Amino acid sequence: MTVSAERILRDPSSVDTPQLIVSEEILHRNIAEMAAFAKSINVQLRPHIKTHKSIEIARLQMAAGAVGITCAKVGEAEVMVNEGDIDDVLLAYPIVGAKKYERIVKLMEKARIAVAVDSATAIEMIAQAMTRHERVIDIYLEINTGQNRSGVMWGDEAVRFAQDIDRHPNLRLAGIMTHEGHVAAFDPDEISKQAIAAGEKMVQTAEMIRSHSINLPTVSVGSTPAARMTPTVAGVTEMRPGTYVFNDSSLFRFGDQWGVEDCAARFVATVVSRAAADRCVLDAGSKTLALDPNAGHKGYGYIVGHPDVIIDRLSEEHGACVLPEGEEGFEIGDTVEVIPNHICPTINLMDRMAVVRDGEVVDYWQVAARGRVQ
Amino acid sequence: MTVSAERILRDPSSVDTPQLIVSEEILHRNIAEMAAFAKSINVQLRPHIKTHKSIEIARLQMAAGAVGITCAKVGEAEVMVNEGDIDDVLLAYPIVGAKKYERIVKLMEKARIAVAVDSATAIEMIAQAMTRHERVIDIYLEINTGQNRSGVMWGDEAVRFAQDIDRHPNLRLAGIMTHEGHVAAFDPDEISKQAIAAGEKMVQTAEMIRSHSINLPTVSVGSTPAARMTPTVAGVTEMRPGTYVFNDSSLFRFGDQWGVEDCAARFVATVVSRAAADRCVLDAGSKTLALDPNAGHKGYGYIVGHPDVIIDRLSEEHGACVLPEGEEGFEIGDTVEVIPNHICPTINLMDRMAVVRDGEVVDYWQVAARGRVQ
Repeated sequence: MTVSAERILRDPSSVDTPQLIVSEEILHRNIAEMAAFAKSINVQLRPHIKTHKSIEIARLQMAAGAVGITCAKVGEAEVMVNEGDIDDVLLAYPIVGAKKYERIVKLMEKARIAVAVDSATAIEMIAQAMTRHERVIDIYLEINTGQNRSGVMWGDEAVRFAQDIDRHPNLRLAGIMTHEGHVAAFDPDEISKQAIAAGEKMVQTAEMIRSHSINLPTVSVGSTPAARMTPTVAGVTEMRPGTYVFNDSSLFRFGDQWGVEDCAARFVATVVSRAAADRCVLDAGSKTLALDPNAGHKGYGYIVGHPDVIIDRLSEEHGACVLPEGEEGFEIGDTVEVIPNHICPTINLMDRMAVVRDGEVVDYWQVAARGRVQ
Repeated sequence: MTVSAERILRDPSSVDTPQLIVSEEILHRNIAEMAAFAKSINVQLRPHIKTHKSIEIARLQMAAGAVGITCAKVGEAEVMVNEGDIDDVLLAYPIVGAKKYERIVKLMEKARIAVAVDSATAIEMIAQAMTRHERVIDIYLEINTGQNRSGVMWGDEAVRFAQDIDRHPNLRLAGIMTHEGHVAAFDPDEISKQAIAAGEKMVQTAEMIRSHSINLPTVSVGSTPAARMTPTVAGVTEMRPGTYVFNDSSLFRFGDQWGVEDCAARFVATVVSRAAADRCVLDAGSKTLALDPNAGHKGYGYIVGHPDVIIDRLSEEHGACVLPEGEEGFEIGDTVEVIPNHICPTINLMDRMAVVRDGEVVDYWQVAARGRVQ
C-alpha cells in the first residue's frame, strides 16, 4: 500500500461535517483508466452504478466509452433512464415480482433493459409479463462461479436454463453473467488464480450453451478487485466493475494495486470528544461510515495521514477511535478525511456529495438513486 | 422470548418489496406503555427520535406526554422544529463546529434547544457563540457512567466541568445526562444491577454538583434496554429511550421482556433466488437490514414465523438465508416479514414507512429526518 498523507480538501471549514467529498481529479483518472483497460483487452465496459448512484458519474462513464450501465434494482434503473437519459441498462439481479415487471415494461419504452434470472419460476413470470405486453426482453442468465449466493451452477445446469430461456419467444438470451465476489485473498497470485478460474468457468459454460445452437452474444463478469484479471480470459466480452470510480480502504489488502491516492471519495469528520487521552470521537458513526468490515485495514475506515489511528467502534453517530500516544491532529474541532471500508453503502447514506477540484468544493452532486431498494 | 407467527400485513402483494411496514397498533401500544411507565415513576420522558426520524411519531410521543424530544444531530432538530413544530429539543451529542452553533442559534428562535457538552473546548466555543448572539443556552453535561465513548467521568471530574459551565453567563447548566449503552447482559438480574449502578452514579454526581451551590434541575438517563431500570433510581428526573417505539430483534436477548408481538416495524421481503436447496436470497440486503450484529438471535434479522431460518450473509441487496430441511414458505416469489437486529439504522436507509392498520396499509409516513448527519 502506498501511504499518502495528502488530503483532497484544502480548507475543511468550508464544509459542515460529516461531509462526503469527491476528488474530481481522482474520479476522472479512475474512470479513464478502467475505460482504457477495457479497451486494451477488447472487452465492453458496463459499470455498476450502485457505487455512486449519481447521474453525473454515470454520464462520465458513458462518455468514457461504457456500452451501458448495470443496476441492481428497478428503482435505480428508473432514475438512470428517466432522469439521466441512460439508454442501456442491465439489471444484474434476479428481479422477482409482478409490480417490478410492469415497471420494467414501462422503462423499455425509453431504453434497452436486460434482466438477470436464476430460476425457472422467474423465467416463467417474466415470459408471461412480456407475452402479455407483446415485448421481447433481453435476459442474462446468472451463473454461480463460486460465490454461492445467487446464480445457477456453471456447466450443465446453466445449459438447461439457457435452453429454457431460449424456448420462450418473448425472451432473448443476451448473455450469461457472474459476480466473482468470492475472489479475495491477500496474495496477488492467489487472487489472480481465482479470478482466472471464474472467467474460465464462464467461457466454458458459454461454449457448452453455444454447442446447442443457441446464440449467446455476451459473457459478462463483475467486481472491482478482479477487474484486471477475470476479463482478460479469452471469450469474456463484458465487465461490470463498480467500486473503481471511488475505490475504498478494503482494496488496500491487495498489496500495491491500490493506495490512498486512488481513493476519490472520503468523509470529512470532526473530532467532537476527547474524553480520554487515548480515545477520541469523530462525528461520523455507522450512519456515515457503515459497519462493513475490512480485511485490508483495522477498524471502520482509514484516516488519511494517520494510518495508526484505529476507528475502533461505531455507534450510529459516534466514531470512537483509539489514539496512539502522542498522535497529533485530534484535538476537539480538528478535522480528518476518512476513507471508508466499503464505499458503496456509505454513498447510499448520503443525499449529496461535494465535488472537489484543486482543493476547493466546486459543486454538489445528488446521490440521485439513493435508497431505491425496490 | 415469546414467539409469534403473526405477520402484521395481511396481503403482502399490496406493497412492492423490500418495504418498511409499521403496525399502528403495536406502535401506539409501545408509546402508551412507556409514557405510562415514566408517569408511574414520576420521571419526565424525552424520547430520542433517532429511531423513527418521523414527524408523525414524534407528535404521537409528545401527545402521550413527552416533555420534549432528544436528537443527535442539528439537522434532525431542524426537521423536528421547522417541519414538526416540536418546541423542546435536547441535542444529546457533543456538538462541535461554528456552522452548527449558528444553526442552533437560529433554531432557538422557535424552540428551547439544549446542547450536550463533554469538553472544555466545546464549552468555550458554545459560550463564545452565545455571547456573540446575546443568548443563553441550556447545557447538559454528558457523563460517562461506564460506556467509555463520550462523556466526562462521573464524580469529581464532572463537578469541575459543571463549575466551568456555571461560570459562563451565557450558559445555563440545565442537567447532566448519560447514555448507559454499556448495560447489556443475558441475565436480567445482571442487567438490572448494571442499570441501577449507572443511575446511582448519576444521582451521586448530581448531589456533588449541587453541594457546590450549583443549580442542577435535570438528571437524565437513556437507552431502551435499561429503560425500566435506570430511571427508577431515586433522583433521576428524565429518561430518553428511543428504540421502544418499534423495538427490534436485538432486544430478544433480554428473556421474556420483549417478543415478536412488541416489534412494530418490519421489512416485507421477497424470495428472489433459490439456487440451492438449503439456501435462498431475500431482496433485502445491507442497504435494507443494515449490518448491525445481534446478541439475541443469530444472523441479520428475525423472520417472523420462521425462527430457525438464519439470514446468514448480507451483501448490499442480497439477504442470503440458510434454510433448514423441509422449511416451507421460501419458494421464489414468497414473501416474509423480517424484524431487523437494530431498527434505528434500517429506518435511516428508507425514505418512508407504510403504516398498517388491521392488516392493511392505510398511510405512508416520510422518514423526514433521514440522513441528517450534519
